[in-house]
Amino acid sequence: MHKIQAFDDCVSELSRLPGIGPKTASRLAMHLLKMKPEDVRRLSEHLIAFKEKTVSCNICGGISENDVCPICRDSYRNTGILCVVEEAKDLFVIEQTGYFKGRYHVLGGKISPLDGVGPDNLRIANLADRIVQENIGEVIIATNPDVDGETTAAYLIRIMKKYPKLKITKLASGIAIGTHIEYADEITVVRALEGRREIC
Amino acid sequence: MHKIQAFDDCVSELSRLPGIGPKTASRLAMHLLKMKPEDVRRLSEHLIAFKEKTVSCNICGGISENDVCPICRDSYRNTGILCVVEEAKDLFVIEQTGYFKGRYHVLGGKISPLDGVGPDNLRIANLADRIVQENIGEVIIATNPDVDGETTAAYLIRIMKKYPKLKITKLASGIAIGTHIEYADEITVVRALEGRREIC
Repeated sequence: MHKIQAFDDCVSELSRLPGIGPKTASRLAMHLLKMKPEDVRRLSEHLIAFKEKTVSCNICGGISENDVCPICRDSYRNTGILCVVEEAKDLFVIEQTGYFKGRYHVLGGKISPLDGVGPDNLRIANLADRIVQENIGEVIIATNPDVDGETTAAYLIRIMKKYPKLKITKLASGIAIGTHIEYADEITVVRALEGRREIC
Repeated sequence: MHKIQAFDDCVSELSRLPGIGPKTASRLAMHLLKMKPEDVRRLSEHLIAFKEKTVSCNICGGISENDVCPICRDSYRNTGILCVVEEAKDLFVIEQTGYFKGRYHVLGGKISPLDGVGPDNLRIANLADRIVQENIGEVIIATNPDVDGETTAAYLIRIMKKYPKLKITKLASGIAIGTHIEYADEITVVRALEGRREIC
């Protein structure tokens, strides 16, 4: 088969992205050919700009265009509540709901012995410092409800029990809105039962 | 909600790509943050390079780094058979099998009245010229088996019937390998029955 080097290079670069296999990569590459040259250039420039302009926020570890992110700088946010997430992308999802008015703490991952990630590789010591220095009243643990996320949550709870006045909460687990109980896995159903709420 | 302009720009550019919605786009953007700066730069450069280095082949309409693509230049290919595809990406899929040794003709789309694409917008006149000039003996129609693809195929057949010596063939429709008859749609099953082959 004849090869077009520029096409193969483009496909191999796109295939490195998460969730993009060789088929999707070549479909995306073919789409580039239909785009206007200035659009392809703008796409590329925005990818580089995002990478080069953003840094980790010195306080929460989220992404920011300055040393301190807009959320940590915002004096209207509730400074007594911290929501602890694994990654900055989780922060975005919670922030998009507009419901949470406190601030965040990004761990930068989760405890995962298989991947060689221990508590020391995460921003956990940093979290302990913040609890004291910022006089935090409540920590909401918002790690993912998978094995590693639950391990991380359990570890955080053990660490934070040292602060007697600190309220520790965790995101509710249960049946996701819009799905059917029929399709929920057993653990989710058990969690939904455990976390049942009294209506009247 | 606080916005990070570089993030929003990056997500909005990625969301324009086919099959990438806002959720996937923001997941990809977050992945960029974890990549090394030089990797992001290389990805961007390859996207631009592919767009800028490739042109349409003057003969078949496929993609090429020169005026004439390697397939059309290759003297070992069977010059008497043309495989007619809608888009260059279809050419790639067929070429990857390594089975077809003839050459291609890329229409550049399919007849689609709803999208305002008629026969004049496709490289059909060009195909007719090639049949005569290149003394083509067989044309394999490899349009997609959807409504517009079948319309295009029917139109091509009508045009090509003018050449009495030309053999016109079409890709077989039927049950895809690896799937189950149980899940095939009715039309596919009918096509598979119509196209049944005598084994012994």
